[in-house]
Amino acid sequence: MILNKFYIDDIIKNAIKEDINYLDVASAYTIPETQEGKAYFVAKADGVLCGIDVAMRVFELLDDSFYANVYKHDGDEIKKGDLIADFGGKMLHLLEGERTALNLLQMMSGVATATNACVKAIAGTNASVAETRKTIPMLRALQKYAVTCGGGSNHRFNLSDCAMLKDNHIDACGSITKAVNTLRKKIGHTVKIEVETRNFDEVKEAVAVNADIIMLDNMSVEDMKKCVEYIDKRALTEASGNVTLETIRNIAESGVDIISVGALTHSVKAMDISMKIK
Amino acid sequence: MILNKFYIDDIIKNAIKEDINYLDVASAYTIPETQEGKAYFVAKADGVLCGIDVAMRVFELLDDSFYANVYKHDGDEIKKGDLIADFGGKMLHLLEGERTALNLLQMMSGVATATNACVKAIAGTNASVAETRKTIPMLRALQKYAVTCGGGSNHRFNLSDCAMLKDNHIDACGSITKAVNTLRKKIGHTVKIEVETRNFDEVKEAVAVNADIIMLDNMSVEDMKKCVEYIDKRALTEASGNVTLETIRNIAESGVDIISVGALTHSVKAMDISMKIK
Amino acid sequence: MILNKFYIDDIIKNAIKEDINYLDVASAYTIPETQEGKAYFVAKADGVLCGIDVAMRVFELLDDSFYANVYKHDGDEIKKGDLIADFGGKMLHLLEGERTALNLLQMMSGVATATNACVKAIAGTNASVAETRKTIPMLRALQKYAVTCGGGSNHRFNLSDCAMLKDNHIDACGSITKAVNTLRKKIGHTVKIEVETRNFDEVKEAVAVNADIIMLDNMSVEDMKKCVEYIDKRALTEASGNVTLETIRNIAESGVDIISVGALTHSVKAMDISMKIK
Amino acid sequence: MILNKFYIDDIIKNAIKEDINYLDVASAYTIPETQEGKAYFVAKADGVLCGIDVAMRVFELLDDSFYANVYKHDGDEIKKGDLIADFGGKMLHLLEGERTALNLLQMMSGVATATNACVKAIAGTNASVAETRKTIPMLRALQKYAVTCGGGSNHRFNLSDCAMLKDNHIDACGSITKAVNTLRKKIGHTVKIEVETRNFDEVKEAVAVNADIIMLDNMSVEDMKKCVEYIDKRALTEASGNVTLETIRNIAESGVDIISVGALTHSVKAMDISMKIK
Amino acid sequence: MILNKFYIDDIIKNAIKEDINYLDVASAYTIPETQEGKAYFVAKADGVLCGIDVAMRVFELLDDSFYANVYKHDGDEIKKGDLIADFGGKMLHLLEGERTALNLLQMMSGVATATNACVKAIAGTNASVAETRKTIPMLRALQKYAVTCGGGSNHRFNLSDCAMLKDNHIDACGSITKAVNTLRKKIGHTVKIEVETRNFDEVKEAVAVNADIIMLDNMSVEDMKKCVEYIDKRALTEASGNVTLETIRNIAESGVDIISVGALTHSVKAMDISMKIK
Amino acid sequence: MILNKFYIDDIIKNAIKEDINYLDVASAYTIPETQEGKAYFVAKADGVLCGIDVAMRVFELLDDSFYANVYKHDGDEIKKGDLIADFGGKMLHLLEGERTALNLLQMMSGVATATNACVKAIAGTNASVAETRKTIPMLRALQKYAVTCGGGSNHRFNLSDCAMLKDNHIDACGSITKAVNTLRKKIGHTVKIEVETRNFDEVKEAVAVNADIIMLDNMSVEDMKKCVEYIDKRALTEASGNVTLETIRNIAESGVDIISVGALTHSVKAMDISMKIK
Repeated sequence: MILNKFYIDDIIKNAIKEDINYLDVASAYTIPETQEGKAYFVAKADGVLCGIDVAMRVFELLDDSFYANVYKHDGDEIKKGDLIADFGGKMLHLLEGERTALNLLQMMSGVATATNACVKAIAGTNASVAETRKTIPMLRALQKYAVTCGGGSNHRFNLSDCAMLKDNHIDACGSITKAVNTLRKKIGHTVKIEVETRNFDEVKEAVAVNADIIMLDNMSVEDMKKCVEYIDKRALTEASGNVTLETIRNIAESGVDIISVGALTHSVKAMDISMKIK
Repeated sequence: MILNKFYIDDIIKNAIKEDINYLDVASAYTIPETQEGKAYFVAKADGVLCGIDVAMRVFELLDDSFYANVYKHDGDEIKKGDLIADFGGKMLHLLEGERTALNLLQMMSGVATATNACVKAIAGTNASVAETRKTIPMLRALQKYAVTCGGGSNHRFNLSDCAMLKDNHIDACGSITKAVNTLRKKIGHTVKIEVETRNFDEVKEAVAVNADIIMLDNMSVEDMKKCVEYIDKRALTEASGNVTLETIRNIAESGVDIISVGALTHSVKAMDISMKIK
Repeated sequence: MILNKFYIDDIIKNAIKEDINYLDVASAYTIPETQEGKAYFVAKADGVLCGIDVAMRVFELLDDSFYANVYKHDGDEIKKGDLIADFGGKMLHLLEGERTALNLLQMMSGVATATNACVKAIAGTNASVAETRKTIPMLRALQKYAVTCGGGSNHRFNLSDCAMLKDNHIDACGSITKAVNTLRKKIGHTVKIEVETRNFDEVKEAVAVNADIIMLDNMSVEDMKKCVEYIDKRALTEASGNVTLETIRNIAESGVDIISVGALTHSVKAMDISMKIK
Repeated sequence: MILNKFYIDDIIKNAIKEDINYLDVASAYTIPETQEGKAYFVAKADGVLCGIDVAMRVFELLDDSFYANVYKHDGDEIKKGDLIADFGGKMLHLLEGERTALNLLQMMSGVATATNACVKAIAGTNASVAETRKTIPMLRALQKYAVTCGGGSNHRFNLSDCAMLKDNHIDACGSITKAVNTLRKKIGHTVKIEVETRNFDEVKEAVAVNADIIMLDNMSVEDMKKCVEYIDKRALTEASGNVTLETIRNIAESGVDIISVGALTHSVKAMDISMKIK
Repeated sequence: MILNKFYIDDIIKNAIKEDINYLDVASAYTIPETQEGKAYFVAKADGVLCGIDVAMRVFELLDDSFYANVYKHDGDEIKKGDLIADFGGKMLHLLEGERTALNLLQMMSGVATATNACVKAIAGTNASVAETRKTIPMLRALQKYAVTCGGGSNHRFNLSDCAMLKDNHIDACGSITKAVNTLRKKIGHTVKIEVETRNFDEVKEAVAVNADIIMLDNMSVEDMKKCVEYIDKRALTEASGNVTLETIRNIAESGVDIISVGALTHSVKAMDISMKIK
Repeated sequence: MILNKFYIDDIIKNAIKEDINYLDVASAYTIPETQEGKAYFVAKADGVLCGIDVAMRVFELLDDSFYANVYKHDGDEIKKGDLIADFGGKMLHLLEGERTALNLLQMMSGVATATNACVKAIAGTNASVAETRKTIPMLRALQKYAVTCGGGSNHRFNLSDCAMLKDNHIDACGSITKAVNTLRKKIGHTVKIEVETRNFDEVKEAVAVNADIIMLDNMSVEDMKKCVEYIDKRALTEASGNVTLETIRNIAESGVDIISVGALTHSVKAMDISMKIK
């Protein structure tokens, strides 16, 4: 797993503590502690898989005797009926971990699948698909990772690692030019500056002051096209604002570099995956 | 707020640390620390509000000078354009808290709204709508609460507080009867026993052994009706399995007591709510 | 161990950090790090063992080379002099873990032993023995588990998983009837409602409104008998209030279903168990 | 409160999260959020009070509107029927905090009371009463503090702050002399060295090597007297081993400086204190 | 304070728990709890102040009655003898917080002062001074902030927010070109790519593949000059490798944009600041 | 490792989470997950090694396949060029852990090296070298341990385990005599009392009241000599106040028992150690 182990393990432990509290009463009182079991994950829908290592890690942390064969990996396109992984260990721990493993796997695969649909919708254009900061609190890392598994590309992780100047920042400084210059004096050289713009004049100002990324916020496709041409690679361009699977191709054809889609992470449709006991 | 303060505060603090890391560079470098600001939340869609106290708490924890007037409360039906709350404090903290507050508020309102649609769809029947354990890891409490704000009713919180016997438990014991009897010897008197059944024979066995709740898993509406009649209030009845807004009324008319709907919490459509700076 | 591993490991880690801080100076400065050692647990009193898996887990977490033979298990009745387990590993880690392992084991065995005395005292009656929420903060799970090892049965774990209506709740609503009805509209179908009653009239009202459990609070055995007869299995009955080993048989003979005993967990007499180095 | 605020607040928050989980269903669903309430603590038994500031802090953390008048303070001897404190705030928060506040207060007062009984039993002798490391995991700080409120004096807090050489350490080094000398080369100058002895010869060796404290482990009173006379203030002397309220006076009259009593903290009898709503 | 409140508060609480454990015995046993006190911070050396808000926050969290007048602010140059702040509250809490407040303030001011010396040494050149990831574990945020207060500029915060390709990454891919291209396909558009180079050929390759930042690692000033000229603003240039106050001016005159200095944060000389009780 | 495993593991996990956040983008996107690697630590300067077990533990926690050969151990004097350890495992995890491992190792070795320089400077005198509470917040344990590896001896760990009476405590009580007597009534028998003195009269008073340790604060060497002679082993003597490597020998020759040096821990010069990939 390429994700930071301690980061993921903390999520898993907290999720299990939430789901079980101190005891899975039904299992603890009916399943002998030493009983071995085997199970598998099977896709109940088509989509892009994401989170299989995280899901396996749930059981690995619960059960030292856990073993698994993983057939489908993060980023793989899977079809309804596909066998994703089979695995075994103590039955008690398989049952304890089932819901947490699936909740994570289905959410992550849901994000990857939705991202992938957008990526395919704009195939052949210059644009890439990115998520926003409209993520599920405490699960942003998993969602960002899922976006990349779906073929998307990540926007900033947090408010420290990229500066986006919105109208409030700009108003406080007096103009886009002043805001960028104020910021540039203080900000680290690894941090890009993105400016949110709503019209052509703002775009011109953002270009003039050398913004790294220019967000074209809620513009018509016409306007975006005009802005992209004007910007002419002097900055990365990002389209934003209520993008849907229906509208995304059209937006991409405006020539923007990145299209950010809040719904990828704030409105996840969990992918249907089942765990079956053999 | 009726939710346990420490439980909620921990979620908020973790969410803010995830979103900001140590510094909101854009805001910290462009907004004077002492600048006051005012803002408001406005609905961009119709739905049932949930999480306004949690959202306000985000700012309250960040800013000792924060104040708010809340016009719409958890459980209120709101319309696009409705003013939900206006509030003020240090601009820097308003900007810091905005995304976390909205991420929580929109998710919770999304759950309440989806729940409410189901509740309305079955109006006049005996049934109530409940969520499942297919929740977002670490946010189950907020989602359970949102279900109640939408007019739904809660299923068990965790594996300690209600025992649901599924096929694996039953197989390990030999029969429904043996499983329930094994369990009943050990389980606390406040914990209900629910038995998952797939056909009429299993239902009869579950009734005979005095299960508190009988889940009718993935049955046809016909079969459910037959089972509900047979059970005849000797146990609570719960319909489960890929329930949708389209099928729920039909299911409710079978006479079941509870209809549990995984999608309410595993596939949330965030409700659109904006924060505007005055 | 049937207890949730992450839940238990957190308790152990916190307990060790409390007991050692960063260094066991006496051991670290006198015992060679590589020195192997063997030790065993021996009962210094009669009782019911509980916590042996938790105690072994203390050493297992401290020492990858730890191994153990466990002869007496949770729930076993043991006699003074009985060998409970022998085990080995690095001497340094055996000494580091000794006190924490014993503090947990002795407390848990103390709870199991006290519970078992009550269980035996009421043998042949209908009643079971349960603990209350008067538990040691942060150790409730271990104490609940110990009660079951002593032959008792668990009351609710927390304020989310069972509703007990006390006089304050009832006063706020106006009557038992109103309180139960108010609650029932909102509460999940897996959550039982218990009503605290102090006299026959209250019992009648609680029965009429279909309480799941009726607590007979501080009643005379006479009154309890009368109430139990009246209730006649329409609700579970729970006797509560300063129950002692002396009075419990008499109470049980009133016919109540559950007798809850605060002292089982709030006033634990640790069972005497020693760790000896071979 | 002289205790470290952050240390205590963490205990309280964890205890509340254990007791409530996310919602006190009975209270949240029957008590209006804005309802004010008043309550008081009253002693139901005689003893020494301890933990009143901790108990008040529970409510203070839950409720910004909480206020209290405290009439009896930590260390005060109280009688059955004494009013300890009266206080008010939101009824919902009074009910939420009640059990955690009492669980802490009753445990701490139990420790103080038991300590005080020992202190009184040895009045007029040279000896002081101390607890051991046989404390309730994660609550050692509260128990240590309670011992001082009962008139006792504290033994070491953890394995870092005082070195006690037991037989295993001594065996590993070859002799008491070698163990103390090995240790002294490494240990900080603020850390005292205590040596556990079982007979007169060991005492002589411990004195010769300038141990700061000599523990007389499980010796007869006769032997202790002889050892104390021989030691003659060259080291502090500590009696240890199954001390009870019956035997403690006799032990104290041997002239030892400290008598350590495991039962003070490992077998607490909670003091009976009630919270009444006005 | 512009730093994320929850981030800072966690550091403070952990630092206080480390420093006090459960009780400041000397203060708790000699200072009456209600005693008020006044104190002030005074500079004992010249330098750049950093951390005064963090230091004041220590006391604010310990004591609700704390108040302060702050005369010197983060980033101010101060002289030996300067009054930094005076403040008051409960004497017990002033003594409890003193060491933690000073440990943070002196470390942060030490970083700011050392940074500022570098910044002054290169005044008039194009270069800015940055820290590295060689920071004190768990205090990176405070150190990064201190660098900015000293007039420096921040390098990346963590391994997620900027990609630096070192020889191992390059070797694994086959060449700088392959490594950058591999990375660019996957990395988010807000994340800059920095390439570590050791000679002119590598620099040429890095320019050709459009690296955002080119690190000139341990090059002679001559070589750096040559590289900077060749790069000619097509990428930011960073000098790295055992930079000292003696060598930094020379390096800056090579024309590089950033000079990163590990010693700023890995070898802090605490600035001498005292707290005096009035 | 003699340090408490859980204590160290928590530091490591927090440090890694700080350094990586959720993903090391450069490594994750360029290094195949299964790629094996080998590396070694080499000294780039002379000094005393400390932290090698902690550094190895970083990789061990990240990578189950990690193995190591350690050639130089904590406390060993090492020379520039010395091979400290070689080790191997997954390349991805070697790169992930590198910075955290080195940050800890270099800081700890820096403390050990500085301590050792002081220890050597006073060779042949009676004095030992100790650190103070001026440590890096949250890393005190590692720094204390490093002091012992450098040949120094530890001062108190926290405010609970040794009482130092400073002028504020003394003023609050009225005199040294009153302060010590007040304290002695309450303080545990394992806790030493140290009195800070500034002149001969205070020293006399401290001796008269039997202080365990007398700190001679900022006295001239002449005055210290006089005080040490007067005290004549009736208490331990500690010299304190701006001690440097230049002045320490002179101070030691005054005959004091301990010399405490704040700079050992508050102004660490990291020892230069490199990790090389083979």
